[in-house]
Amino acid sequence: MTSGAPTAAASRPAEPELAAVHDWWRAANYLAVGQIYLQDNPLLTEPLVPAHIKPRLLGHWGTTPGLTFLWAHLNRVIARRDLEALFVTGPGHGGPAVVATAWLEGTYSDRFPAVSRDAAGMRRLFRQFSFPGGIPSHAAPETPGSIHEGGELGYSLAHAYGAAMDNPDLLVACVIGDGEAETGALATSWHGNKFLDPATDGTVLPILHLNGWKIANPTVLARIPERELRALLEGYGHEPYFCDVTDVEAGDPMAAHARMAAVFDRVFDAIERIRSRAARGEPTERPRWPVIVLRSPKGWTGPARVDGVPVEGTWRSHQLPLTRVREDSEHLALLERWLRSYRADELFDAAGCPRPELDATLPRPARRMSATPYANGGELLRPLRLPELGEHLLDVPAPGSVRVGATGVLGGWIRDVITANPETFRLFGPDEVASNRLQAVFEVTDRVFDGERRQGDDHLAARGRVLEVLSEHLCEGWLEGYLLTGRHGIFTCYEAFIHIVDSMLNQHAKWLKVSREIPWRRPIASLNYLLTSHVWQQDHNGFSHQDPGFIDHVVNKKSEIVRVYLPPDANTLLATMDHCMGSRDRINVVVAGKQPAPQWLDPDAAVAHTLRGIGIWDWASNDAGTDPDVVLACCGDVPTVETLAAVTLLRHHLPQLRVRVVNVVDLMRLQDPREHPHGLPDREYDALFPPGTPTIMAFHGYPWLIHRLTYRRADHDDLHVRGYIENGTTTTPFDMLMLNDLDRFHLAADVIDRVPGLGVRHAALRQHLLDERLRCRAHTRRTGEDAPDIANWVWPG
Amino acid sequence: MTSGAPTAAASRPAEPELAAVHDWWRAANYLAVGQIYLQDNPLLTEPLVPAHIKPRLLGHWGTTPGLTFLWAHLNRVIARRDLEALFVTGPGHGGPAVVATAWLEGTYSDRFPAVSRDAAGMRRLFRQFSFPGGIPSHAAPETPGSIHEGGELGYSLAHAYGAAMDNPDLLVACVIGDGEAETGALATSWHGNKFLDPATDGTVLPILHLNGWKIANPTVLARIPERELRALLEGYGHEPYFCDVTDVEAGDPMAAHARMAAVFDRVFDAIERIRSRAARGEPTERPRWPVIVLRSPKGWTGPARVDGVPVEGTWRSHQLPLTRVREDSEHLALLERWLRSYRADELFDAAGCPRPELDATLPRPARRMSATPYANGGELLRPLRLPELGEHLLDVPAPGSVRVGATGVLGGWIRDVITANPETFRLFGPDEVASNRLQAVFEVTDRVFDGERRQGDDHLAARGRVLEVLSEHLCEGWLEGYLLTGRHGIFTCYEAFIHIVDSMLNQHAKWLKVSREIPWRRPIASLNYLLTSHVWQQDHNGFSHQDPGFIDHVVNKKSEIVRVYLPPDANTLLATMDHCMGSRDRINVVVAGKQPAPQWLDPDAAVAHTLRGIGIWDWASNDAGTDPDVVLACCGDVPTVETLAAVTLLRHHLPQLRVRVVNVVDLMRLQDPREHPHGLPDREYDALFPPGTPTIMAFHGYPWLIHRLTYRRADHDDLHVRGYIENGTTTTPFDMLMLNDLDRFHLAADVIDRVPGLGVRHAALRQHLLDERLRCRAHTRRTGEDAPDIANWVWPG
Repeated sequence: MTSGAPTAAASRPAEPELAAVHDWWRAANYLAVGQIYLQDNPLLTEPLVPAHIKPRLLGHWGTTPGLTFLWAHLNRVIARRDLEALFVTGPGHGGPAVVATAWLEGTYSDRFPAVSRDAAGMRRLFRQFSFPGGIPSHAAPETPGSIHEGGELGYSLAHAYGAAMDNPDLLVACVIGDGEAETGALATSWHGNKFLDPATDGTVLPILHLNGWKIANPTVLARIPERELRALLEGYGHEPYFCDVTDVEAGDPMAAHARMAAVFDRVFDAIERIRSRAARGEPTERPRWPVIVLRSPKGWTGPARVDGVPVEGTWRSHQLPLTRVREDSEHLALLERWLRSYRADELFDAAGCPRPELDATLPRPARRMSATPYANGGELLRPLRLPELGEHLLDVPAPGSVRVGATGVLGGWIRDVITANPETFRLFGPDEVASNRLQAVFEVTDRVFDGERRQGDDHLAARGRVLEVLSEHLCEGWLEGYLLTGRHGIFTCYEAFIHIVDSMLNQHAKWLKVSREIPWRRPIASLNYLLTSHVWQQDHNGFSHQDPGFIDHVVNKKSEIVRVYLPPDANTLLATMDHCMGSRDRINVVVAGKQPAPQWLDPDAAVAHTLRGIGIWDWASNDAGTDPDVVLACCGDVPTVETLAAVTLLRHHLPQLRVRVVNVVDLMRLQDPREHPHGLPDREYDALFPPGTPTIMAFHGYPWLIHRLTYRRADHDDLHVRGYIENGTTTTPFDMLMLNDLDRFHLAADVIDRVPGLGVRHAALRQHLLDERLRCRAHTRRTGEDAPDIANWVWPG
Repeated sequence: MTSGAPTAAASRPAEPELAAVHDWWRAANYLAVGQIYLQDNPLLTEPLVPAHIKPRLLGHWGTTPGLTFLWAHLNRVIARRDLEALFVTGPGHGGPAVVATAWLEGTYSDRFPAVSRDAAGMRRLFRQFSFPGGIPSHAAPETPGSIHEGGELGYSLAHAYGAAMDNPDLLVACVIGDGEAETGALATSWHGNKFLDPATDGTVLPILHLNGWKIANPTVLARIPERELRALLEGYGHEPYFCDVTDVEAGDPMAAHARMAAVFDRVFDAIERIRSRAARGEPTERPRWPVIVLRSPKGWTGPARVDGVPVEGTWRSHQLPLTRVREDSEHLALLERWLRSYRADELFDAAGCPRPELDATLPRPARRMSATPYANGGELLRPLRLPELGEHLLDVPAPGSVRVGATGVLGGWIRDVITANPETFRLFGPDEVASNRLQAVFEVTDRVFDGERRQGDDHLAARGRVLEVLSEHLCEGWLEGYLLTGRHGIFTCYEAFIHIVDSMLNQHAKWLKVSREIPWRRPIASLNYLLTSHVWQQDHNGFSHQDPGFIDHVVNKKSEIVRVYLPPDANTLLATMDHCMGSRDRINVVVAGKQPAPQWLDPDAAVAHTLRGIGIWDWASNDAGTDPDVVLACCGDVPTVETLAAVTLLRHHLPQLRVRVVNVVDLMRLQDPREHPHGLPDREYDALFPPGTPTIMAFHGYPWLIHRLTYRRADHDDLHVRGYIENGTTTTPFDMLMLNDLDRFHLAADVIDRVPGLGVRHAALRQHLLDERLRCRAHTRRTGEDAPDIANWVWPG
């Protein structure tokens, strides 16, 4: 029944102790069923009648009793061993379970005093669940003890590993649903154990919960032979411990408890052996951390049969074992029998308060999983010690006089962030830190890897601040877990492939949005993305690596949460990252190139421009600060170069034309202030973009995004945007710009087209510009390189 | 060195045969290096000088020799056993390999006659690679024999399984890179073997290629002990066969060939045993299909050391082992030595044509992997036999007189599609077919599952047309593989979670965009998404399940490719799906609800309205076909109900107000025709939405999307859009609408605000409407249900 590594003297759990665990489990299950069904009569002090039943029955019972079972047994172990533990609920739809346990532990009433630990509170606890104005049906930010929503399955184990990093005294118990285990993100999350240092990181205990079914389908892992499942988990590097309670008779629950307790005792003995070896600094190979496989019936302790068909132990208990409780007296009777099977009168006193005997089995208050500060990371958050920008900011004697790669400069600053914050900051990326030119960090740290390390490996070590794995899911999930438990970090990624975690971003944005509305949730560090190797710098890889649409995705999230920055050079990038690293409860997206490029702003100008987020570049303009004929706007590093190159063309050919150059760092400045807190007031917007004056904007991403952001602005019709229009291949940087009509010639021709009167007078010039473009294309096709005058272009100053 | 199931008499490959394999491998490697480096002197008929070298060196060598090695050995097996095989290149950045093999097999010149099979063609072959106007550096639609880009790693094995479905005579050899294996999508793709029927589906042979390194980092699977790797692969249900050639001396390549050939012989013996048992119909448990693990040096046969550091067998050979070939005479000399090490003069005749001996080792032309029609699925495509809509279309005597769930009606039609196309159509979904109310399909088919099946399972069988697995990645990848090999299908998904495959959609859209530009690529069936359980119908699950942003993501793709439909009722849904299933080379996104809802259009009206894609609903309007005071537009099923409810409020309170109702099915009709082929001409748009007349639009998704689509339209300022503004929780359907200001009261109040003059005169009415709204909120908060007048609202006709 149970198995795993042989232990000489597995302790035999005492009967009374397990009886207490069983009582507590019954209480939690009772509270879970009550949440799903009852709006009144919480203690069943009177016979159940339809009016006690919620009108809309919404919730998931199937996974719930397994979660309460595991929580009860973990409490036993925590209390015995005085562990600091965090519970990650993979099957987050089992919300009734984790709400019930938090209420039983007293934490719920601490967090929400109106939901008191008595009959009135219990009534409110039941009524609010899945009820308008109440709480969600899933684990959520509202749930004390949770860092994990669980609604979109797949991210629990990655969150667990992120939470464990740099928390050597923390145990993260991660329940993985067998449905969830089929997702891609979860399937690769098992390899997190190769990125944990047993001496300086905490322990992740994965608990694979096989209850056999999804909504209507069996799960894959429940239907492979046990020898395969064992091999799979051993292949992931774990030592599996199996606990199967599916054959336990309903009348003999103590057999299930004895099995589970024995497994937990052996598992925690094994964990302690590993941890003490690591603490003694004994050189070991990667530990084979335990993993638990719990097989339990879906909808355990629920109605065995309903309407003549089996329900407990089948997919039919996924949501509601009984669906027509208000309408069908038989269902109502079944519900009453089900509820009374937990014998609530033994568990709660007449006032509805859990009897003191129940509390006796709990860990001491500071150790209760529902109350751990690790599940409310803001409580543990220490601000980063951010290094002064001063020494990192580049001296730029004149715009365009220096040429350097922006991310390379940033790398030096991040190196110093790492040095100043050796335990609370990490850098995550899918194998790209060096490729993205941040390699200065390796002067002070290494890549973490607890697989085999060999001679010749490049900055690979048992511990370090850099996590590289070819999975955007893992990078995102680890960082989220790290942030949610009160630390700081950056995710660097190829711009195109950050779409792999679109959906994870959604869930994190939702978490932040709701958390900000919950008084006891303390702010956490922002989720910072540095997107580089971007759409305009993919000459090595081509079309598959070209997609700037993550910004479009992000701006649909709640405006209080999201910020998007496109710094035009290294100094503005430094100032931007400095700002982002100090912010809280945000999602900051920063897009910056890694290739050598002209630098525009000296330190003071760069910091001021970044703070403003948008502004006129006087040194590039010739409208004398007033009344331009045309505004050339630019947003993004490469579009800024093209815009300035277009300005030189216009200066040369049309010296009388009054051109204003506006650069945008903070994309949200364009949006209406009613839609985004960073939105420029209309008056200021109109001062930059005078109504009636055409604006040609060169944008890093899809051009339509600018129209979507500015649709409320005056004279929107005068705004003409160039950007990426999904044309790409493996070619030169300038050819990419030409393919998408974002090149200097096209921008200058756009000016001729848009400024009233120019088109007629300067048709020849327009043709000349487009001929120049063709000359460049022909040169590139012939030689494979950009034309020398393009490649060597410098701002004339 | 090699291992796996013991075979009594593993055939010993003959020496001359392996010598021929080696020659062919040398030739392929030579052509690969030539592509990366040379623009001239392809046969090295003169000493190499800088002018022969490309000015920009772009490409990936590291994985390439492993790919050519596997291709060469597969050819040997294909020729011996006359197999029909498809090669899926997981590490698609090894483009030089698969281009080289296609050219050696003659297919490249067949597809691109200018790249002839002689010295001139070889020169062009080299020059075009990663060159402006040439071909991409990765496997791509341009590559004969490929269905798989491989640029964004992770999807090879899912594509392979999709390709194998319903192709019992096809072998899909899928090379999985060890970097790729770290991705989430790949990590769960291993479980595809539980969804294949050995009797009616083909064979997938995964080949895990461990060359040890990503860009600068070791790979996880190359650094776990072999016992763990073996356990992992056995845990996935496979029988692993290991081939390690990393210890083979450079001077003894035949040892490597002997090992590889022996492994392939044993593997194909095992496959044949499985297939013949299945063909005989012997009842067996799920076969333990072979998997091959090839350990070979990264950058094998490339320069061992460069600039004093090891390169072959290390991460330094990921891209270019030699980087400064034009500038550094030592690098140039190393390149020449490297190229000459393949002894091209033995392999190609003086004219540059592969010597006949090389061709002798090839499979017969119809069996060459570069030429297989399975890699150009349009060649195999048979149109679906689409059932008549007639019997499925609902009789709707009057608008609103019938109430039914749209997807339930569609389910009956899909059932008939399945019956009529028993081998060329499949339905994919993450455990949701019944949850999404398409359960009528189970009248004629089952869910495929080749894990353990038990009594009580619901429509689970060894074969069937429905694939359900809790992984959007697998559903998408399998369907893409199925479509790319010439079949048809639908992916049904919860709307919010389709974001999980945003990035896969990107890659498929790019594939389609480029394929359409390649004359020999034949059109394939469209990728059809049916998104249901949508944002407005998540009362069970709440905020985490609410996200309508996939549409926003899709509309950034090339307009020729993408279509988005939001049918307002069952009949329009039927007409829409009928259209989508007959289309080619598209991505069709259809959003439709599953809950019972009023039906609006009778069969003829529904088909006509769907064909038009947008139109005035005269029966709901009172502007007598001309000159309305306000246009109420709606797009999406729930917004349509709310709009019509708002119309009834306006009719009641403001009977003189001339209201026009416009319903949008085909979202792209809103866009400018210069931006999308479905865009309405301005004249027609203005006829629907008269300039100067305010439009209040109720939209299913994020409201800004409508502004982005219509920004070029006249009088954009008069367009006021309501939609999902990222407010959500677990609550009633109408409460969700109120939370997002999309409810009927808000829409009616918007009319008062927007129609000139109404606001002043009807301030009391406006207040009344908002009070009504508050009344509804209060009712919901109190009772947990929508107010009866809302829940029971019917269109008065």
